[in-house]
Amino acid sequence: MGSAYKMIPIPEAQAIVLANTRPLGAVTVGLAGALGRVLAKEVLAPDSLPPFPASIKDGYAVVSSDGVGEYPVVGESRAGHLDDLPVQPGTVAYITTGAPVPPGADAVIQVEDTEPLPAAGEGGQRRVRINKAARAGQDIRPVGSDIMQGDVVLRAGERVGVAEVGILATVGAVQLRVHATPKVAVLSTGDEVVDPATRPLGPGQIRDANRSMLLAAAARAGAEAVDLGVARDTAGHLEGCLAAAIAQRVDVLITSGGVSMGDRDLIKPLLERQGVVHFGRVWMKPGKPLTFATLELPDGDGPAAPGRQMLVFGLPGNPVSSFVCFHLVVLPALRKMAGWAAPALRRVAARLAAPLRLDPERPEYHRCTLQWSPPPPGSPAAAAAAAVATAAAEPPSSPLAGHELWAVSTGNQISSRLLSARSANALLELPCAEGTLAAGTLVSALLIDDLGGMPVPEGGVPTTPGF
Amino acid sequence: MGSAYKMIPIPEAQAIVLANTRPLGAVTVGLAGALGRVLAKEVLAPDSLPPFPASIKDGYAVVSSDGVGEYPVVGESRAGHLDDLPVQPGTVAYITTGAPVPPGADAVIQVEDTEPLPAAGEGGQRRVRINKAARAGQDIRPVGSDIMQGDVVLRAGERVGVAEVGILATVGAVQLRVHATPKVAVLSTGDEVVDPATRPLGPGQIRDANRSMLLAAAARAGAEAVDLGVARDTAGHLEGCLAAAIAQRVDVLITSGGVSMGDRDLIKPLLERQGVVHFGRVWMKPGKPLTFATLELPDGDGPAAPGRQMLVFGLPGNPVSSFVCFHLVVLPALRKMAGWAAPALRRVAARLAAPLRLDPERPEYHRCTLQWSPPPPGSPAAAAAAAVATAAAEPPSSPLAGHELWAVSTGNQISSRLLSARSANALLELPCAEGTLAAGTLVSALLIDDLGGMPVPEGGVPTTPGF
Ligand SMILES: [Mg+2]
Ligand SMILES: [Mg+2]
Repeated sequence: MGSAYKMIPIPEAQAIVLANTRPLGAVTVGLAGALGRVLAKEVLAPDSLPPFPASIKDGYAVVSSDGVGEYPVVGESRAGHLDDLPVQPGTVAYITTGAPVPPGADAVIQVEDTEPLPAAGEGGQRRVRINKAARAGQDIRPVGSDIMQGDVVLRAGERVGVAEVGILATVGAVQLRVHATPKVAVLSTGDEVVDPATRPLGPGQIRDANRSMLLAAAARAGAEAVDLGVARDTAGHLEGCLAAAIAQRVDVLITSGGVSMGDRDLIKPLLERQGVVHFGRVWMKPGKPLTFATLELPDGDGPAAPGRQMLVFGLPGNPVSSFVCFHLVVLPALRKMAGWAAPALRRVAARLAAPLRLDPERPEYHRCTLQWSPPPPGSPAAAAAAAVATAAAEPPSSPLAGHELWAVSTGNQISSRLLSARSANALLELPCAEGTLAAGTLVSALLIDDLGGMPVPEGGVPTTPGF
Repeated sequence: MGSAYKMIPIPEAQAIVLANTRPLGAVTVGLAGALGRVLAKEVLAPDSLPPFPASIKDGYAVVSSDGVGEYPVVGESRAGHLDDLPVQPGTVAYITTGAPVPPGADAVIQVEDTEPLPAAGEGGQRRVRINKAARAGQDIRPVGSDIMQGDVVLRAGERVGVAEVGILATVGAVQLRVHATPKVAVLSTGDEVVDPATRPLGPGQIRDANRSMLLAAAARAGAEAVDLGVARDTAGHLEGCLAAAIAQRVDVLITSGGVSMGDRDLIKPLLERQGVVHFGRVWMKPGKPLTFATLELPDGDGPAAPGRQMLVFGLPGNPVSSFVCFHLVVLPALRKMAGWAAPALRRVAARLAAPLRLDPERPEYHRCTLQWSPPPPGSPAAAAAAAVATAAAEPPSSPLAGHELWAVSTGNQISSRLLSARSANALLELPCAEGTLAAGTLVSALLIDDLGGMPVPEGGVPTTPGF
């Protein structure tokens, strides 16, 4: 007895998912809610920055042709406080960083290159000694030198990071058009599956790892995550849970379990009845029974209204399969919905820290921890590094040559063992083949976590020579 | 007139900050609030996983010595539903993935290797044909094969990512001891600084970019961020803002502006009066006037109670300086407080996509966007890549050889131009020297954003050969 579903390769599965995923519409958010969102509309600068010629230093605004000498201080320009005095030749004005350069002055002398002098008599005028001549324009930012009025400072499709929040504030963009982020429901299935708080376990029970994990994964992807609990293994209860997801108007439903070949594996038949199942088996390890369907739903405004779509990802029940499938197919869909132009996982290459046995039946996504390290001394990779240094005319002593990403396996990869995802920041793409890949082999790796927290090798990582 | 503060190197500044930063105490959080937190206590497994011998497949539990043939189906074991029937030689039981293997059976035959047979007569016993012999133990996970009762599944000091949430749920750890995360107040300073919503700007005014940006940065670091607004350039108002931070019991105060050498730069004198200023100038570009102080405060339980500490980071007012200093010195401190064992920014090496002029006066942190790319054809780096492939015995055609991190500068690096931080995911460490570094030079880079969103080169990145 075989499955009714054709086994398709993972790139095909990913393409099918993205072809059926549409970016969500635009919504308006305030600046404080913009971090992580994707702009749906370009942002223009309403004015130039600086809006006036601005001093780069604390010091004195001068007429550059005046040169070294002693001068009366005829006024001051502080950030936020302008004297209207023009600076005439033979005079200077005190100025602070960021303040407007007064008319007449064409350079700034930093305070370190000056000396205060005694005032000219009781209540007399302040005086200063200028110790260095200035060239015209010195230490002045011209109007618009950072941003010109009308410039596109951020384009539609750009993601708002920390710096972009600052850029938006700079140009006064406090209300933004961004892509909506998806609402994602998470449902576990299985009569054996009990709440994580259950202690001790009854006979035959296991705790629900997938739901908490997938809720966290969806939230980290910027989605609004909705907990639908655990569905029992009856068609009726499962159908009720699907109805709940529809009623809550979620964009995505992620289920786990119920997609293998047991007679209580009810997800696929249910999705066949209510929508279109695009695939039900994928040639990958782990994750073979991965299922994807779309449901076309009425929009609540009568039968003539344009419909809305719900994506359903039926992930396998084994927690590792569920973890891997989330990253490979669900996450790119969530990113595309949220407006990412390039939603796929980023791929890099890494060297194997130890030999890895291949799977002869399916391509495997092997969980690993990438770290930036020197090659093990005496290894072929160390010799390779020396060759790079020579060929690239790196100084042979360059401490940077030969450091690369190294992939350390998380150990036993059986799909029930979620510890194989502990500390994993990448999935290695291992070909379906007999045999073993040697330590030091270059393999491609998909990033699934921020490398900003990756392990640091003993002795650290060297800096640019001379730094 | 020079600064009263000695100019110290950035590694010394970073060391001083971390030496004055203590991890915060432990608090208890629920599993739903655990993502991103650092465990303050190891987590043990209260029971084994699987808690019973579990089937890896949907199929039939058999006695392996029985072999190929036709057998009566004497019971079934479904996940969540156990028949108590033992499986005797000459009989089999139906079983689903994850279900307990009944006593007597020692292997599972997957359903694909079986055929259902007509029942023996009306209402008679179900029968099945087994088409493949099994070895003992086949497709069974023994008790504790994933996790043994008493195992440490996560150690103190580990950060909780998506997989770790699942692991915690698996072992029933729904209440966790984690490090507290810091409460961080953000204050801008300057009479010229106005709210981002201001349009049009009055004479001499600029919008406050730093506060929104630093609040976002603190929030992204997992801190509770408190907005203290903008302080006017008077000692009294600034002191009131500091008092507000103290009253709100923040762990960290981040100010921007007011640390250069103007006579209204009041941050340093204020911190000198109320605490200890550890440094007030750092040999770096941008960020030279960076200031760090600690305040020892009474804990509110009378003068005999042990005090508490507040860290104060006086960042320069230029938004890029503020951005760079946040990542180099504030972020590691926030991470250490939150329990990170290795709080420093992660360092990698990257090749320059274009020549970069060095600064002869200070080491520079040059903002750039890293991407994983092949070397430009015909470049010395392409030759180097070929040499690596040879020396490492990579197949010469390996599409992975020669791909590396390439650093694309964000353009004009003047510290007022926040667009130089747009899309930046790393800071290049450029030595203080005369001259220019050639395109293709390897330089060290500190990661300041997730590489999971880095640009993808045209044509994409290749996979492991054969994948
Ligand atoms: Mg099930
Ligand atoms: Mg100021």
